[in-house]
Amino acid sequence: MTQPYDILQSLQIQLPPLSSPAAAYVPYVQTGSLIFLSGHIAKKPDGQPWVGKLGQTMKTEEGMEAARAIAIDLMGTLHAALQSTGKDLRQVRRIVKLMSLVNSTTDFTEHHLVTNGASQLFDQVFGSAGEHARSAFGVAQIPRGACVEIELIAEIA
Amino acid sequence: MTQPYDILQSLQIQLPPLSSPAAAYVPYVQTGSLIFLSGHIAKKPDGQPWVGKLGQTMKTEEGMEAARAIAIDLMGTLHAALQSTGKDLRQVRRIVKLMSLVNSTTDFTEHHLVTNGASQLFDQVFGSAGEHARSAFGVAQIPRGACVEIELIAEIA
Amino acid sequence: MTQPYDILQSLQIQLPPLSSPAAAYVPYVQTGSLIFLSGHIAKKPDGQPWVGKLGQTMKTEEGMEAARAIAIDLMGTLHAALQSTGKDLRQVRRIVKLMSLVNSTTDFTEHHLVTNGASQLFDQVFGSAGEHARSAFGVAQIPRGACVEIELIAEIA
Repeated sequence: MTQPYDILQSLQIQLPPLSSPAAAYVPYVQTGSLIFLSGHIAKKPDGQPWVGKLGQTMKTEEGMEAARAIAIDLMGTLHAALQSTGKDLRQVRRIVKLMSLVNSTTDFTEHHLVTNGASQLFDQVFGSAGEHARSAFGVAQIPRGACVEIELIAEIA
Repeated sequence: MTQPYDILQSLQIQLPPLSSPAAAYVPYVQTGSLIFLSGHIAKKPDGQPWVGKLGQTMKTEEGMEAARAIAIDLMGTLHAALQSTGKDLRQVRRIVKLMSLVNSTTDFTEHHLVTNGASQLFDQVFGSAGEHARSAFGVAQIPRGACVEIELIAEIA
Repeated sequence: MTQPYDILQSLQIQLPPLSSPAAAYVPYVQTGSLIFLSGHIAKKPDGQPWVGKLGQTMKTEEGMEAARAIAIDLMGTLHAALQSTGKDLRQVRRIVKLMSLVNSTTDFTEHHLVTNGASQLFDQVFGSAGEHARSAFGVAQIPRGACVEIELIAEIA
């Protein structure tokens, strides 16, 4: 069994509270044993969008940090979603799939490495339950100018 | 219980019949209680693609109108999908997730506001069952030059 | 009943073995009766990324070939996924949905025709079980410079 909260603590990661979407939608929807999380944009520690474009104003390493920050926000949303039904992250049976949108120039080709910033944290926190399918690619632009946006599907016990 | 048809009528919205995809796929697939709708591109009232690029030839307000027009087409497809199994829109348990692709320049950052044109209509027509998860982002281009494309997952009773 | 292996043989298609993702994720995840396949990038026969941009260095016809090559790789992954639980492609109840990302200029508008290269092969191999929902659109860039990337959801008996 994974002990995600112990691992988060050992990594000195504090999950954020559920945040309100910037528009007319909700942060997650559960259907059957699947939870669909909305695309979360990268945010700076002050809560403002992490603005940037890979291949222009940002390097791969910084993109990975941004993707890792999104993974933390996604886990915060997942924690809140589970809490609302009396469960918690220990009931995550599987991180099923990520879709990772990287705000990039037409020359940048390391979207998969940027996205590893998120993927590696899921693997770390959830162990084999964190091993997920994934698509990553470069988009023209992201709401509010954010550098990365990630959506997630998880299976719940 | 939502009464989506009454609301559609009060909004003077007429659902279009099921249209044939422009290529080798089908408009929807049901698997278990989920219906996956194909990406629907924005169309003008005459049925031609609603061509344009946000940040260049279109403003946010017009993009919202285009997204709203797609939501109507998606509801037409959903209605037809449900009718094929003897059901109708009153059996929509939840609009689960939208993916909204906005044909935008690399400078435009209001994809979330454009997408609200669709999201707000789903909320209006389905009430709390219309509250959905969502990803919205800017893409390089869309088939036939359309300004917006939206795909949808719905849960059926 | 579809006989996908007979059809693949008649088309002289040999499925590739399961390949290792280029980054920190897995090629597929099964949850309930659904298998989510990671985005597969187009590869040349030598296994290297099929690099190119539609509307610039590639025409629609070549894009279709690349999409068809991805469909073969996706079937290889699906075959391996099913084999791991004692099943095979004959247990594919439905190809549910494709998401097709086409590396394109901002002028290219035939992403749907490019994607047909994959869609038509699924229809050919799986018959009516191969008829799928789909989204296709143009993206700024794809990992490793590939011209097309496709992810897939399948339902298993």
